[in-house]
Amino acid sequence: MESPSLDPSLPGVRQLQDWIREHTPLHVQLVDGTRLGGSLQWQDPEFLALRPDRDSPLMLVGRKALAVIRPLA
Amino acid sequence: MESPSLDPSLPGVRQLQDWIREHTPLHVQLVDGTRLGGSLQWQDPEFLALRPDRDSPLMLVGRKALAVIRPLA
Amino acid sequence: MESPSLDPSLPGVRQLQDWIREHTPLHVQLVDGTRLGGSLQWQDPEFLALRPDRDSPLMLVGRKALAVIRPLA
Amino acid sequence: MESPSLDPSLPGVRQLQDWIREHTPLHVQLVDGTRLGGSLQWQDPEFLALRPDRDSPLMLVGRKALAVIRPLA
Amino acid sequence: MESPSLDPSLPGVRQLQDWIREHTPLHVQLVDGTRLGGSLQWQDPEFLALRPDRDSPLMLVGRKALAVIRPLA
Amino acid sequence: MESPSLDPSLPGVRQLQDWIREHTPLHVQLVDGTRLGGSLQWQDPEFLALRPDRDSPLMLVGRKALAVIRPLA
Repeated sequence: MESPSLDPSLPGVRQLQDWIREHTPLHVQLVDGTRLGGSLQWQDPEFLALRPDRDSPLMLVGRKALAVIRPLA
Repeated sequence: MESPSLDPSLPGVRQLQDWIREHTPLHVQLVDGTRLGGSLQWQDPEFLALRPDRDSPLMLVGRKALAVIRPLA
Repeated sequence: MESPSLDPSLPGVRQLQDWIREHTPLHVQLVDGTRLGGSLQWQDPEFLALRPDRDSPLMLVGRKALAVIRPLA
Repeated sequence: MESPSLDPSLPGVRQLQDWIREHTPLHVQLVDGTRLGGSLQWQDPEFLALRPDRDSPLMLVGRKALAVIRPLA
Repeated sequence: MESPSLDPSLPGVRQLQDWIREHTPLHVQLVDGTRLGGSLQWQDPEFLALRPDRDSPLMLVGRKALAVIRPLA
Repeated sequence: MESPSLDPSLPGVRQLQDWIREHTPLHVQLVDGTRLGGSLQWQDPEFLALRPDRDSPLMLVGRKALAVIRPLA
């Protein structure tokens, strides 16, 4: 909640937005070592919304808990 | 305490608000690996209030400690 | 130290204040997994002051280290 | 570095200042589980300066890494 | 998202920028102990973009999750 | 990146600056338990630059990842 909005000129915000638009399958690693997979639905300043697969409900991932996010190889 | 209020236009705040209104049973994972279950009663900029079951008192969960929050499958 | 004061209109601040006023015995879990028990004496933007029992000195708990706080069952 | 100065009206800042003035022997626990002992020499918004014993050099402890600080029993 | 932009006068931002320009092979350690290797492509206030090798997609590394970053020996 | 500059009136910033000027050999402990040694070259609001020994390249240490920093005994 530090910032009221995302700055679309930042390359990180744009990269995430690209992955959202292209439904890129992603690997997400959190600071506690948790590994998640899925595609991003949206981002806001506090959360990323990850959908593990087509029939799953959205999962909110705390942006501050993100260690690494990358496309599945 | 970084922000004096929540921004209801953010999709994360709205998603949490939907889960509050619909009493959705949730799975909550914290950055230390703790797993909790329950339904959300309210949110503020610092905490989520989780009620594990109907007869339990409220539990405050530090918003900065959130790693993942999702509906129970 | 992000905020010079607590906002008493926030439900989390009010819930903590209720527990302070009522001397509610609490269970406190920190992000490193430490479990503490006691009643709250005061809160400020950086710390909660916890008194484990009547004859113990105050213990300051970093607010950012809070994962869960709830009444003892 | 979020705040340019400490607010001496906060009870946490005052409690730490009391422990500094009285050379109270303290137990300090960090979010990674590290336990330290010593007396506080000063505080600023980023660090606490801890002196483990009379002949040791100062040790800077990151304020954000603090989980618990309390007098030795 | 605390800051809308990076301050190029800071030596840390400049050091990272040097490593980006020179394609320096780097070792990156995160606060959860994860070790990564690669060269930096860009930095923004929230992420570093790391490319593990020439044919890999970019990996976003949360800047707040950084513990140590240094050239490979 | 919370703050555009360091405040040289803070005792923590001054202590670090003394250790930089005097090339004091230091022990650095991070919140994940990593132990590093070396002397400080510079500080900025996000990083400390540590040189493990005379012939090593600089290592950037995230200031938020700092748990303890002290002179080697």
